[in-house]
Amino acid sequence: MDSFDLVVRNAHVVTAADEFDCEIGVRDGVIAALGRNLPAGREEIDAAGRYVMPGGIDGHCHLDQPMNDGTKMADDFYSGTLSAACGGTTTVLPFACQFKGQSLRAAVDDYHARAGDKAVIDYAFHLIVSDPTPDVLQRELPALIKEGYTSFKIYMTYDDLKLNDRQILETLAVARREGAMVMIHAENTDCIAWLTEQLLAAGHTAPRFHAASRPMLVEREATHRAISLSELVDVPVLIVHVSGREAVEQIRWAQGRGLQVYGETCPQYLFLTSEHLEGDDLHGAKCVCSPPPRDKANQKVVWDGLENGVFQLFSSDHAPFRFDDPQGKKAAGENASFDQIPNGIPGLETRMALLFSEGVLTGRIDPQSFVALTSTNVARLYGLYPRKGSIAVGCDADIVIWDTDVDVTIRNEDLHHNVDYTPYEGMHLKAWPGVTISRGEVVWANGRAQARKGRGRFLECSKPLPARPKSERRLVREG
Amino acid sequence: MDSFDLVVRNAHVVTAADEFDCEIGVRDGVIAALGRNLPAGREEIDAAGRYVMPGGIDGHCHLDQPMNDGTKMADDFYSGTLSAACGGTTTVLPFACQFKGQSLRAAVDDYHARAGDKAVIDYAFHLIVSDPTPDVLQRELPALIKEGYTSFKIYMTYDDLKLNDRQILETLAVARREGAMVMIHAENTDCIAWLTEQLLAAGHTAPRFHAASRPMLVEREATHRAISLSELVDVPVLIVHVSGREAVEQIRWAQGRGLQVYGETCPQYLFLTSEHLEGDDLHGAKCVCSPPPRDKANQKVVWDGLENGVFQLFSSDHAPFRFDDPQGKKAAGENASFDQIPNGIPGLETRMALLFSEGVLTGRIDPQSFVALTSTNVARLYGLYPRKGSIAVGCDADIVIWDTDVDVTIRNEDLHHNVDYTPYEGMHLKAWPGVTISRGEVVWANGRAQARKGRGRFLECSKPLPARPKSERRLVREG
Amino acid sequence: MDSFDLVVRNAHVVTAADEFDCEIGVRDGVIAALGRNLPAGREEIDAAGRYVMPGGIDGHCHLDQPMNDGTKMADDFYSGTLSAACGGTTTVLPFACQFKGQSLRAAVDDYHARAGDKAVIDYAFHLIVSDPTPDVLQRELPALIKEGYTSFKIYMTYDDLKLNDRQILETLAVARREGAMVMIHAENTDCIAWLTEQLLAAGHTAPRFHAASRPMLVEREATHRAISLSELVDVPVLIVHVSGREAVEQIRWAQGRGLQVYGETCPQYLFLTSEHLEGDDLHGAKCVCSPPPRDKANQKVVWDGLENGVFQLFSSDHAPFRFDDPQGKKAAGENASFDQIPNGIPGLETRMALLFSEGVLTGRIDPQSFVALTSTNVARLYGLYPRKGSIAVGCDADIVIWDTDVDVTIRNEDLHHNVDYTPYEGMHLKAWPGVTISRGEVVWANGRAQARKGRGRFLECSKPLPARPKSERRLVREG
Amino acid sequence: MDSFDLVVRNAHVVTAADEFDCEIGVRDGVIAALGRNLPAGREEIDAAGRYVMPGGIDGHCHLDQPMNDGTKMADDFYSGTLSAACGGTTTVLPFACQFKGQSLRAAVDDYHARAGDKAVIDYAFHLIVSDPTPDVLQRELPALIKEGYTSFKIYMTYDDLKLNDRQILETLAVARREGAMVMIHAENTDCIAWLTEQLLAAGHTAPRFHAASRPMLVEREATHRAISLSELVDVPVLIVHVSGREAVEQIRWAQGRGLQVYGETCPQYLFLTSEHLEGDDLHGAKCVCSPPPRDKANQKVVWDGLENGVFQLFSSDHAPFRFDDPQGKKAAGENASFDQIPNGIPGLETRMALLFSEGVLTGRIDPQSFVALTSTNVARLYGLYPRKGSIAVGCDADIVIWDTDVDVTIRNEDLHHNVDYTPYEGMHLKAWPGVTISRGEVVWANGRAQARKGRGRFLECSKPLPARPKSERRLVREG
Repeated sequence: MDSFDLVVRNAHVVTAADEFDCEIGVRDGVIAALGRNLPAGREEIDAAGRYVMPGGIDGHCHLDQPMNDGTKMADDFYSGTLSAACGGTTTVLPFACQFKGQSLRAAVDDYHARAGDKAVIDYAFHLIVSDPTPDVLQRELPALIKEGYTSFKIYMTYDDLKLNDRQILETLAVARREGAMVMIHAENTDCIAWLTEQLLAAGHTAPRFHAASRPMLVEREATHRAISLSELVDVPVLIVHVSGREAVEQIRWAQGRGLQVYGETCPQYLFLTSEHLEGDDLHGAKCVCSPPPRDKANQKVVWDGLENGVFQLFSSDHAPFRFDDPQGKKAAGENASFDQIPNGIPGLETRMALLFSEGVLTGRIDPQSFVALTSTNVARLYGLYPRKGSIAVGCDADIVIWDTDVDVTIRNEDLHHNVDYTPYEGMHLKAWPGVTISRGEVVWANGRAQARKGRGRFLECSKPLPARPKSERRLVREG
Repeated sequence: MDSFDLVVRNAHVVTAADEFDCEIGVRDGVIAALGRNLPAGREEIDAAGRYVMPGGIDGHCHLDQPMNDGTKMADDFYSGTLSAACGGTTTVLPFACQFKGQSLRAAVDDYHARAGDKAVIDYAFHLIVSDPTPDVLQRELPALIKEGYTSFKIYMTYDDLKLNDRQILETLAVARREGAMVMIHAENTDCIAWLTEQLLAAGHTAPRFHAASRPMLVEREATHRAISLSELVDVPVLIVHVSGREAVEQIRWAQGRGLQVYGETCPQYLFLTSEHLEGDDLHGAKCVCSPPPRDKANQKVVWDGLENGVFQLFSSDHAPFRFDDPQGKKAAGENASFDQIPNGIPGLETRMALLFSEGVLTGRIDPQSFVALTSTNVARLYGLYPRKGSIAVGCDADIVIWDTDVDVTIRNEDLHHNVDYTPYEGMHLKAWPGVTISRGEVVWANGRAQARKGRGRFLECSKPLPARPKSERRLVREG
Repeated sequence: MDSFDLVVRNAHVVTAADEFDCEIGVRDGVIAALGRNLPAGREEIDAAGRYVMPGGIDGHCHLDQPMNDGTKMADDFYSGTLSAACGGTTTVLPFACQFKGQSLRAAVDDYHARAGDKAVIDYAFHLIVSDPTPDVLQRELPALIKEGYTSFKIYMTYDDLKLNDRQILETLAVARREGAMVMIHAENTDCIAWLTEQLLAAGHTAPRFHAASRPMLVEREATHRAISLSELVDVPVLIVHVSGREAVEQIRWAQGRGLQVYGETCPQYLFLTSEHLEGDDLHGAKCVCSPPPRDKANQKVVWDGLENGVFQLFSSDHAPFRFDDPQGKKAAGENASFDQIPNGIPGLETRMALLFSEGVLTGRIDPQSFVALTSTNVARLYGLYPRKGSIAVGCDADIVIWDTDVDVTIRNEDLHHNVDYTPYEGMHLKAWPGVTISRGEVVWANGRAQARKGRGRFLECSKPLPARPKSERRLVREG
Repeated sequence: MDSFDLVVRNAHVVTAADEFDCEIGVRDGVIAALGRNLPAGREEIDAAGRYVMPGGIDGHCHLDQPMNDGTKMADDFYSGTLSAACGGTTTVLPFACQFKGQSLRAAVDDYHARAGDKAVIDYAFHLIVSDPTPDVLQRELPALIKEGYTSFKIYMTYDDLKLNDRQILETLAVARREGAMVMIHAENTDCIAWLTEQLLAAGHTAPRFHAASRPMLVEREATHRAISLSELVDVPVLIVHVSGREAVEQIRWAQGRGLQVYGETCPQYLFLTSEHLEGDDLHGAKCVCSPPPRDKANQKVVWDGLENGVFQLFSSDHAPFRFDDPQGKKAAGENASFDQIPNGIPGLETRMALLFSEGVLTGRIDPQSFVALTSTNVARLYGLYPRKGSIAVGCDADIVIWDTDVDVTIRNEDLHHNVDYTPYEGMHLKAWPGVTISRGEVVWANGRAQARKGRGRFLECSKPLPARPKSERRLVREG
């Protein structure tokens, strides 16, 4: 047996199913052996007494995404991936977003240019399909799927992104034919527009009315509709950033009927409530995201969903807008009404530790579920498995060694993103990644980033793994 | 006590709640007394041994409705109301339909002209709102509601009628403010269009593919959406012509949560299945209606819904297109594809007897429920109560005396509508109206119509009765 | 038309379905005519501007029921029926209770002796079957059903009354065969016993722990079981005194599946919460009943159930134990633990006004539903219809004329029962019966009881009306 | 790195979460390394092109269990474990069954004596608690749990085994306190007895009436009750051998509410229906087991439950009674009525291949789920993990190498159990274990058993892994 570049000793390894004590031998950035008494590596790390887990994969984050409304995302591929790495994430999947009227491939090309040689960890692209013209559906999208862009997101709201039901059906049909994974932002756009108009007409402009403009039923209705459209086309779909009970009930109902409907949730739905949108001035704008955080009772339902199988994915939906910035939350000025505030909150760096500390260490979820939700399932659903997503022979050596006897106070000044706030400021956690390893290289250790800009590689995705259409069902029953 | 114009002796009267033996004294077309040993009337009818019930109110039928696609409805206000009277119905509510681009008032004026002096029984108008312009919403519709057109129908499908979600919200908001009842045709139009395209592309053009183009989930999705929109606006709605389990489940779920969501079903969902759409040539076109009839299992669920409170109304959705007619089912020729067949089936005359024979006499529903479903609830929901809808002092003397020891074979040649078929041809029933009385005048007896053309009167409707908005809920919660 | 003993003029009559203005002519204690301009009566009452409704039927109350534990019910047939009449109730159905080891007929005979000539309004008996021996099931019970005791109650808890599942099945089978209505007290007795033991062992003896010893799931489980047993036997059942969401969900689920499962609730589940059990000393004992009152959220669900069809009946479950009495709530002394407090609260006199004031006048339920819940449905389900339960020709003239422009403060000193408290002391109501008429005789008017002791008659019950077994289902499927 | 006793080359390893290509190095019966280019082992196996998975753990099987009714189980620890090994199972958990009146420890001692030195693979014991006397609950059971018998089964039916609700509560309370896993056989015993009596009285004695005597609702009710009791005690439970929709719905409902309710199903509910109980003579007796197999629609629901998380375990419930044997299915003679037929069917050897062939190879479930259901979850829930249940460093080398390009016809003559039939006779499978390895030793290969009698070891179980009580809930809320 040849020698190793790196050996992690005394590891308490956790995968999405297992938990065992061993050593990890890494060679050429890949996990080459798991065993005991492995020969010495060029580099050695002692993980004694610590959880060693697959590096996080953030399947839902926005980095340097071009905006057409005067705002600007604060994180590019450097600050974004650096922040991710320092928080225990070793792969990110941001979005190459098509503008209406634009070619999908142009969006991809542009996004590669933006990624440039900036990333410090590996990355793949989701697409955002906002203009499913015949050419996009018949030519561009199938070609891009074949080239490794095997997942795409569609929106049921936002004027510049939303698809109508007919467009969704046609787009889902392509996904079915080509074997792609479709992520759906499910909120009823007409309801939001109508409520917003009512609220503004009544003089209700403060950030907290953002939540009033997108009540739970707006998300529930769109979730039911998304499920129905996917059932009609007979194709798996993923409902992203699910915020509470009524949407959870729809997804669980679909799953119970044997449909391949997946669910994702995010830290904001476990740790924030709509009360975080209150406050003077624009302060509440910091927590404006869609769907909005709900209340404590809904948080409970989302926690339960992490345990009982409603959710497969736990992502950040990192959308980096600076608060005190004319291209950020204040793009429309200090007196902006809630509908003029850019949607989104930062979370790439805090995602893993929040769930580890408040989920695993409290016993709410087991360590295996943590790995599944933050890494393995993400890799599987987006076609990165088995290269990413586990600690097993042949996988990239993307590894996090956890410190769990710590008392970390979250402070934005300690984070590595380029946003000027975190919604979790001052929160105390009992866990934080001690060491992050990307393809065998330490990129974060001892509280210091050690990641070289540009070392991250672009990943072509394979077909989503569990997303096989049921065998016997036909698209159209012939009467 | 003054004398009576008419006395019905030995009546076994059934109302929506009660059942009692008495005599009915009628004066000036109105029920003036219920009692025993009433003084003699100018006319006397002996109802010994027979059920005496309120005349039917058909809250959903189409008569002489202007069409803009080359088809023509076969029944006008004369043949339609005559047919109704012969089947035990004493009030009809057809639709004054706005075309897109047209004024709503113009539609009402035109429809009054069509009604002219033709009706043999009383009638009121529902409106159909297909073009909710600001002028319609702010001026015409509120004015018409105040004038006695207090219910209107909106469509979620059909290109010339459908409203999008935003339009529905705005229209519901008017209904809430003005206290009108909204009937919703709930099917997802984009799903239908997409499926139709797929079916036609595959060469599936026969009438039976009409059912394949509108599967249950298409109705379920729209039902869930209609409920959600009405929940948002906080206004009662009525889901019309519900066809089976999945829509029933949505309505029942809403009712269980305390929402004022009402349901209507029709004979076609109790007695027909999608197999009736099969057959050579266009024969199946006779049963093409939307939503399409489903299967036996769904029929069972609809029957259960009549008993357990899901449905408040049982209507015909009479839509009279002749089969062998270039302005009817064959408007697009003998080789028409399913999507070119005019939707709708006749049923005004058979509605009451079908449910009495197969529902009441079999014990599936009790006589009181029959009265509620076919008359009292219709009057209440559409603002005709207490003038119409019961046998009580002060009500119009609209009365049906039932023959129940008969064996009636349904034959189209015996019916009085102007359609050249009935979907129920050859069916055996154990009951049929023996006598129909409208405002104290016998209009049908001894198997013969006795109704004078033009005797029917137009009815201005009051506000829907149980359709009061819940007191304490506000439209927009203020955070 | 002959003259009348009594004519009620200017009545705004409400039945379970209708609402109309007329006069009511009464002869020989029976409603002989409804009309306008009726000839003069020997007695005349002007009801101008007031609701005139059927007298209440209290389908669930305990009067002078023999106890075998040293306690004694405070109301006999005189004080109980007097109290009922003053509160607008004209018929009561208390329970002839079989002790274990006792003959059912002996219980009936004894109960007739207790009723004696005391009642001021009419009454029928439910049976309580606590010892379903072969003789009881094969001989006594069928004979008594035939004689007019067509409803009986069974218990799933209380050591001296409870039946096990096998006994319930056998008893239900008799009900099916003979056409009787079965009322079920649904709480899991083993759970209660186990929890009680835990609580007492922990020193938790105060009255408020009564609620902790019977949490919602204890009622939910037994409700599910009762439904299952009745489904197996294929017989209608009535779940009595339903207290909140989880039991409501079970009943609604059964009803949605087409089962004949009926539900009853009581004032205590609309107006009290478990907080009423708190307090020093034994004060909370006043509100100790089973199931216990829950919380505000459960009250909302119960209110919704009155509207959406879960509940058919609204009863008092009057169980009269004096508070400050060694045969009442303090039977086990001032330091009694919660399990030693006799279960039950008084409510015969306040039932009708509570629901009228807080349900009808607030718009939560419509007047017709009030009549159905408090009178018509009770008469139908217990075989007293059409003699009792409505205002229609031929019915007994049991009538309430409501005062609705009043401000009544409930004070026990104003009530006519023999209990020394009311749980609703100090509550303000906007309605109270102005006149109560029993078989044409005024028994309560102008705030004064005018009822002659002993004028009440015993009623033999017919078969329950809507309780017909479904036609096509067989008891045992033959494989 | 030291040398290995065994190296498996070219393995395509599947765990409950992962799938990777590597070599497996075994030393001292334990997996010592996973890697590539491992040094030579004393023994080498080439697994090229084949799935390599953890050996099956059968968490529910009956071997040589003492019977007190004249029947005798056909398999002892030798034939049973041999059969298991030949079917890819490397650990079994049969039951040490307490008779009523017997000491639990006596049952354990007796069962160890029966196991003797017969087993060819490793085994642990579940307990069956049928007589929870105070001594059993306070002394014997806690002691045995501490000694490594950490799971036990309780019955809600069978006269000689069943517990009443109170006994169940007390037993669950011990499980909660000691951290044991409780398996529940959920069928309502009184319903079964009553139906059986009805059927026999009607002369319905053939085996197929076994199914009629235990309809779905009998299982549903008991499942709801078991869930309720465990919810009250706040302890995880496992509902075993779930047969169809109605029980699945109860479990899924509980899981959705955040309860720790686990589900197990068996091959008979995927591959048999109640039609298998039909036939002349006693032929149908071969498939008499409880709950009985249902119909195709229920099979679909059970299959869905394997995918959507309802079920954690897939077990055989192997209960070996010979068909043509006076101590087997014919214990009561050729003319036995259905209730006299011993319950149970054989299935230890076929369990793994049935699910692999019809589940994994058809795409109904993914390979990881197969491993979870047949091995990993079993080990976790019964305290055998991580010694058993995975292919990971430190685990026992219990491994199956699958042949998947085969056409196997199931014939009882090829099986190694001591039963004279298999319900799956003649069924064609596409997969069968090619090699079974137990602690590094090949026990089945090339179609030949190579297992030495007595090599199997008894395993002491630890506490169930995911079975931790929720932290913050208290047993009794203090008001």
